[in-house]
Amino acid sequence: MKLIIGNRAYSSWSMRGWLALKHAGLEFEELVVPMFDEMWEQRREGDEFAPSLGKVPILWDGDNVIWDSLAIIEYCADKVGRDRFWPEAEAARGMARSMAAEMHSGFSALRRELPFNVRRNFGSVELSSEVEADINRILNLWAQARARFGGTCEYLFCNWSAVDIMFAPVVTRFVTYGVRVPPFAAAYMEAVLHRADVVEWIELAQDEPWVIEAYEGATA
Amino acid sequence: MKLIIGNRAYSSWSMRGWLALKHAGLEFEELVVPMFDEMWEQRREGDEFAPSLGKVPILWDGDNVIWDSLAIIEYCADKVGRDRFWPEAEAARGMARSMAAEMHSGFSALRRELPFNVRRNFGSVELSSEVEADINRILNLWAQARARFGGTCEYLFCNWSAVDIMFAPVVTRFVTYGVRVPPFAAAYMEAVLHRADVVEWIELAQDEPWVIEAYEGATA
Repeated sequence: MKLIIGNRAYSSWSMRGWLALKHAGLEFEELVVPMFDEMWEQRREGDEFAPSLGKVPILWDGDNVIWDSLAIIEYCADKVGRDRFWPEAEAARGMARSMAAEMHSGFSALRRELPFNVRRNFGSVELSSEVEADINRILNLWAQARARFGGTCEYLFCNWSAVDIMFAPVVTRFVTYGVRVPPFAAAYMEAVLHRADVVEWIELAQDEPWVIEAYEGATA
Repeated sequence: MKLIIGNRAYSSWSMRGWLALKHAGLEFEELVVPMFDEMWEQRREGDEFAPSLGKVPILWDGDNVIWDSLAIIEYCADKVGRDRFWPEAEAARGMARSMAAEMHSGFSALRRELPFNVRRNFGSVELSSEVEADINRILNLWAQARARFGGTCEYLFCNWSAVDIMFAPVVTRFVTYGVRVPPFAAAYMEAVLHRADVVEWIELAQDEPWVIEAYEGATA
């Protein structure tokens, strides 16, 4: 299998796809294609990028191609067993699937106004009311999941799951922009940020040579 | 089980959730809550709507709540067996999951500029270049799925699947706005529009008393 990803520093969706493959424990090569530079433009015109119109991540498994991070999660779950990615109990799984789907299509203000950047910490920035609403919704979902299904474990539904993978780039955003969170959320974020795979992603991002201004906007 | 939906005339996501339950063959009550009127406002403040912040569809299965249409599809698939909703072969399933996910988070120009309205046929309307790009992408995905996995069957991946459910409201949009499509797509659309569950949805929409101007915009 081969996973095509964008810059580790900037591509939150790439992070999700990569965390999914890591969690599945499947062997894969990875190909980092830096966004928006010459190699990116060449790649976008090539066959490997064609299925997604040039978006990342893209998973190639032989001739099979999966070009969306939630689809990559489900593809991995099909390979290694659903229970590795989703809670076993129906009530928990229903909520988990709803949360993952909401992250997949929603929180556009947060995504637009607080660009993903795991190399930076801008301190506490001023937030628009739309971003605050997104953050409140996320904290509310985390709180409910933790209260109902987290038990004494570290993650949202006890074991690390697809939902944690979907929200991991939100955790790093909260760090990047100094978002103030209640203690339960801070504890959850700590747990996410100390996972070996999350640490690996963030560390590898530090050494990338590319700088894209659009993701460094909060410095302006 | 109880499914809360918005107006059949206007709510494309409700249609997807409802088609999923129909296809699962599960018994369910349905509650139509007309969008944006008084009942809608009251409901949004009630417990039944709380998990989704007032969005539809919402599936209640006892105390379990699932508040996103793709999550409802997966929840149904968990209940009745994955193969009823997704292709059995891995290559087909990987593509199907990618297409469903792309529909779930994408095609924003199409969704914004051509509002869902199964009661109207506006003839051929002028399309922005963004909408044309969305339409071309959709036709391209349909063509690939049909060519690789459709065989001599009627639907995208041969049997009616989650992908057809996700794209059914696109089929009705193409009718509503007179979008010109190649013969293979016209044949696929015919097949979708003649399914008993799709017909039932559209027929029930005709009798709804509510009119929302925002969805009737193409008449202006």
